[in-house]
Amino acid sequence: MKTVRAPIITLLVICATLLFATVLQAADLSTGPIACTLTSWNDGPAKKSIIEFVTKVTKEGGPDFVTPSERIAVFDNDGTLWAEQPMYFQFLFMLDRIKALTPQHPEWKTQEPFALILKGDVKAALAGGEKALGQLMMTTHAGMTSEEFEKIVRDWITTAKHPQTGRLFTEMVYQPMIEVLSCLRANGFKTFIVSGGGVEFMRPWTERVYGIPPEQVIGSSIKTKFELRDGKPVLVRLPEINFIDDGPGKPVGIQMHIGRRPVAVFGNSDGDLQMLQWTSAGDGLRFGLIVHHTDAEREWAYDRQSSIGRLDKALDEAQAKGWTVVDMKKDWKTIY
Amino acid sequence: MKTVRAPIITLLVICATLLFATVLQAADLSTGPIACTLTSWNDGPAKKSIIEFVTKVTKEGGPDFVTPSERIAVFDNDGTLWAEQPMYFQFLFMLDRIKALTPQHPEWKTQEPFALILKGDVKAALAGGEKALGQLMMTTHAGMTSEEFEKIVRDWITTAKHPQTGRLFTEMVYQPMIEVLSCLRANGFKTFIVSGGGVEFMRPWTERVYGIPPEQVIGSSIKTKFELRDGKPVLVRLPEINFIDDGPGKPVGIQMHIGRRPVAVFGNSDGDLQMLQWTSAGDGLRFGLIVHHTDAEREWAYDRQSSIGRLDKALDEAQAKGWTVVDMKKDWKTIY
Repeated sequence: MKTVRAPIITLLVICATLLFATVLQAADLSTGPIACTLTSWNDGPAKKSIIEFVTKVTKEGGPDFVTPSERIAVFDNDGTLWAEQPMYFQFLFMLDRIKALTPQHPEWKTQEPFALILKGDVKAALAGGEKALGQLMMTTHAGMTSEEFEKIVRDWITTAKHPQTGRLFTEMVYQPMIEVLSCLRANGFKTFIVSGGGVEFMRPWTERVYGIPPEQVIGSSIKTKFELRDGKPVLVRLPEINFIDDGPGKPVGIQMHIGRRPVAVFGNSDGDLQMLQWTSAGDGLRFGLIVHHTDAEREWAYDRQSSIGRLDKALDEAQAKGWTVVDMKKDWKTIY
Repeated sequence: MKTVRAPIITLLVICATLLFATVLQAADLSTGPIACTLTSWNDGPAKKSIIEFVTKVTKEGGPDFVTPSERIAVFDNDGTLWAEQPMYFQFLFMLDRIKALTPQHPEWKTQEPFALILKGDVKAALAGGEKALGQLMMTTHAGMTSEEFEKIVRDWITTAKHPQTGRLFTEMVYQPMIEVLSCLRANGFKTFIVSGGGVEFMRPWTERVYGIPPEQVIGSSIKTKFELRDGKPVLVRLPEINFIDDGPGKPVGIQMHIGRRPVAVFGNSDGDLQMLQWTSAGDGLRFGLIVHHTDAEREWAYDRQSSIGRLDKALDEAQAKGWTVVDMKKDWKTIY
């Protein structure tokens, strides 16, 4: 009898174990932090603070438990999820678009700021200040339909290379932050991007690269207009600012789009200060993290004096508010 | 031996069945429309069209299959998910707010449009047109923080009663539409509200009433401003229009907020025409539905001549575009 029963019992045990595991997996998120190995992080206070936060907010019955529907995490993009040097990547996109559009604009040879851009003197072109930048932006970002713009971005992002690293821009996303995104999502968080960059510049690739769907991307925008063209509805991008999602605009954008206060926020510059403050001021446990660019060898090192991604006031405020400051050089095993 | 093995085998079968069922449940959405009994709908072409659509887009390998991430459905609110007569409920909220604020505003006794509102002559008060309405709206909707406004709405929505039915406003949501929302969500759809109403007027209760979280509510809005008050960050509501999410504004709002075209759209008035057009013009199978208010007995009957929720052009276009037109009287077994 023993020889007959043994395999049945073994099967029964396997089956019960599988059932238990499946139910556990499917049922809820109360079993603590899942998939938070953070393998690209070196052991240290930064890594520890992330895991501790996730452990606390997912511990059902614990004092810091956050119900799954309230688990909202917001991430800046430039300098937080991907690199931003020597200039914001959307700016490089803009320069490439100017070049691509030049054959249709012979007048640009003598018309500023275009002529200077075509000569490669970006700095002189931008000496025209906001007006010059506005002209360059609107020429390259407006005038087409939303679908046409999406295609332009898709084509660029899948082919254009970074001038210094020679990599695709989507290969310059930070692996340690990808792991944080996964860790949070595995623990019931909805992850959002809240970026000063253009919302329609990010949406065509954020799902593939970060696992963040278009409806969870918040950014700056220009106005659009609904039109019927030969009976076919289109949205036309207009050369007029709609919203600047930077600095004090970030909490405004968060409220407008999400309608509730995040419990976790990730940034890297003073442009993220107000959303760090807004998140931290909520009731209960909140988590703030600043990526400090300290690695001149593997990435770039910059903070208080940088015109791109300046980190000054937020760095001062980090200690008082208990925000985690990531020392990229020390805390990250891998960058990209 | 038989007596010993039988219970073990029975257990094994039960266990395997449970495991199979659990895996099926958790695994994916390829098994066709789940939870689409639509019990408050009478059998007929409207009910049939909904079930057929859901069946087709969830049939993996079928010609109309839509990947889960693209399953976006948008719903108008006033007249589509809840009633809107004899005036939009947010307008009734506004009138109640005017009354509540009167003790702090003795000057309103002689100042229009307030004086007429206080006398109960709403029609005369609104003869002042957009300017009068703007004054009433901004007085009641701006000047406080976003959190204060949320509390005001919560208090009102849980206590105020409809002047004719005596019900709470959240008891005047359409049960058949609640079933459609559930049916879609059970089949992997993300459901959004796209309403001309104020976004912050809806968010405090849409999750509880419709199962739609704040981040999936799109609506009209006024501008807000980030401020530090004694070091505490607040968002202050300003008396300035930010966005009107109505008519041609609806596809604009959808693109701004969701960033992709819905595959299903539900409305009831000409204010939904452009989002019906925008949705229908997408590639592949799309679904459009219009709630036609035909039931003067159980609800209200109105369409082409109504100043609230006018349904005229969209009704004309419904046949050519293949949109389902719900005959409320005939198609709905239950209203609320």
